Amino acid sequence: MSELRLNLITREWVIIATERAKRPEDFKTAAARKDIPRYVETCPFCPGNEAKTPGETFRISDANGWKARVVPNKFSAISNSGNKERRVDGLIRSVTGVGVHEVIIETPLHNMNPALLSLEEMEEIVKIYKNRFLEAYSDSRVEHVIIFKNHGEGAGTSLEHPHSQLIGTPVMPVQFRDRLEAAAHFFDDTGECLMCMMAKKEKEEKIRIVAEDEHFLTFIPYAALSPFHTWIFPKRHSASFGDITGAEIKDLAFSLKNILSKLYHGLSNPDYNFVIRSNKQKDCNLEYFHWYVSIIPRISKAAGFELGSGMYINTSLPEESAEFLRKVRF
Amino acid sequence: MSELRLNLITREWVIIATERAKRPEDFKTAAARKDIPRYVETCPFCPGNEAKTPGETFRISDANGWKARVVPNKFSAISNSGNKERRVDGLIRSVTGVGVHEVIIETPLHNMNPALLSLEEMEEIVKIYKNRFLEAYSDSRVEHVIIFKNHGEGAGTSLEHPHSQLIGTPVMPVQFRDRLEAAAHFFDDTGECLMCMMAKKEKEEKIRIVAEDEHFLTFIPYAALSPFHTWIFPKRHSASFGDITGAEIKDLAFSLKNILSKLYHGLSNPDYNFVIRSNKQKDCNLEYFHWYVSIIPRISKAAGFELGSGMYINTSLPEESAEFLRKVRF
Repeated sequence: MSELRLNLITREWVIIATERAKRPEDFKTAAARKDIPRYVETCPFCPGNEAKTPGETFRISDANGWKARVVPNKFSAISNSGNKERRVDGLIRSVTGVGVHEVIIETPLHNMNPALLSLEEMEEIVKIYKNRFLEAYSDSRVEHVIIFKNHGEGAGTSLEHPHSQLIGTPVMPVQFRDRLEAAAHFFDDTGECLMCMMAKKEKEEKIRIVAEDEHFLTFIPYAALSPFHTWIFPKRHSASFGDITGAEIKDLAFSLKNILSKLYHGLSNPDYNFVIRSNKQKDCNLEYFHWYVSIIPRISKAAGFELGSGMYINTSLPEESAEFLRKVRF
Repeated sequence: MSELRLNLITREWVIIATERAKRPEDFKTAAARKDIPRYVETCPFCPGNEAKTPGETFRISDANGWKARVVPNKFSAISNSGNKERRVDGLIRSVTGVGVHEVIIETPLHNMNPALLSLEEMEEIVKIYKNRFLEAYSDSRVEHVIIFKNHGEGAGTSLEHPHSQLIGTPVMPVQFRDRLEAAAHFFDDTGECLMCMMAKKEKEEKIRIVAEDEHFLTFIPYAALSPFHTWIFPKRHSASFGDITGAEIKDLAFSLKNILSKLYHGLSNPDYNFVIRSNKQKDCNLEYFHWYVSIIPRISKAAGFELGSGMYINTSLPEESAEFLRKVRF
């Protein structure tokens, strides 16, 4: 018999299909990866093609040119110019699509796999995330900032060159509002931060932990919505990623490289998304919310049941997935 | 500049990317469809292979055998046997995976496209939906029933033979709970059913209507989450699909065939999911909720931004999509 598990943070029920669960090895990517060249003449993110992107908003230079660049998204969903204007009329609720949409070009090398970046390079990228996150929130039109990465076609990327994105929207997404509310209810009930409590319990139980360092805990959630869905929780309570310290940046870079490498080596370079889920910077002192990173390998496909219910069917056991990832060496 | 629109029923914000919106014709499926045979020896749903499925729970017979069959899902996510047992322990919340999971085999013909079924056949299928919906709710372990269809690989189907599914879960999905709450708040505010009000407004505005018959209104929602996302609303207020009358079944069959045919001919047979969103049968008299059908062509792909925010980027204009579909003749 399968087991339904409730994710207390997202309030989503997940059907853990224990009976037809596959072994962790069965989730290895079967598709042969094509050889990717180091440089592509037509790629707007390759060195020499800087004029193909809108004007840089941030750059890390080195003796040979640049190591990383940030540029506005050329095909932006959200416009950087214009006023935030609301319309409330009958059942119409709209707001102009203004805010921030940036691309973080992570390396000059077209064929670099993010899992294979050096620790120093990963640390630079996390530093850039912090810089752009704070900068985006300094725009008074921005209500909520999402930093995310799409790796591979199955994860929805349209450009092969390694990059991540930041979108600052003029409204708060309902999904985030719901998480805030769930965490607030838990705090009302218990006087504790739900995420702090969850980290504590996971550390006690050990069975879903993938890795741990001084400042971060990497684990598969009890109600993981899909195979190898992984969370990285900061151990220090803080509601906003913008609050991250220098020592924590180093450790987050390590934790990120660690889990991406384990996925790369253990599951043969699967497509994945990751996202930083954080409260807005000005509410960084909120007692009941706690920022974290969510990594979602795109191993299974959502169909009508998932779209129609918001429930997921997971054909892996979180405890087995965690054990498998713990053992992957690289 | 793009426009963010709030869907009052789902509370989701959608970025309508008006500037880079494509024309409706540009969403036509480019992939060539392979020829599908009328009969496949190894298909468990083809006539002659009835022994390959678990025992039938419903059948519509004709002189040549059967026209439609309902069977338990052989690879069920939810088990039909066993007790509903809850566990509440620390942060653990689980419930045994018991309930109902059935497959509705819609036709003996392996290669029949659902859009090309006759009106009479579609009517039989809607009748089966009603029968199985009521039957599922007669199981005291079932808290919520979803009826859905996955058409095509891109919509997550694993079997080519035309079929839909019913899953009765032992808990209510949070996505449905959220919709109930949003509708209840609207009722508190206005004394009106949100869906009745929305149908009224759409009829007045006309610009997003695709079709209308005596009992149903087919339209593209103002904040459609993806291109050609379509809703079919019953005109008569009722919280539960199980309440549908004989005359309404006829009209729903017509409305379903109409929109599926428009998608088939207008967009070259796209993959899609549809789902019946309904309250539980015993709460069918609820004043503030109203059942409906949602059809989601799988034309665009969710990436990190959608997963991380629950917001969607729609590169089509709902008003243009509706105008395009209105004009598709078949």
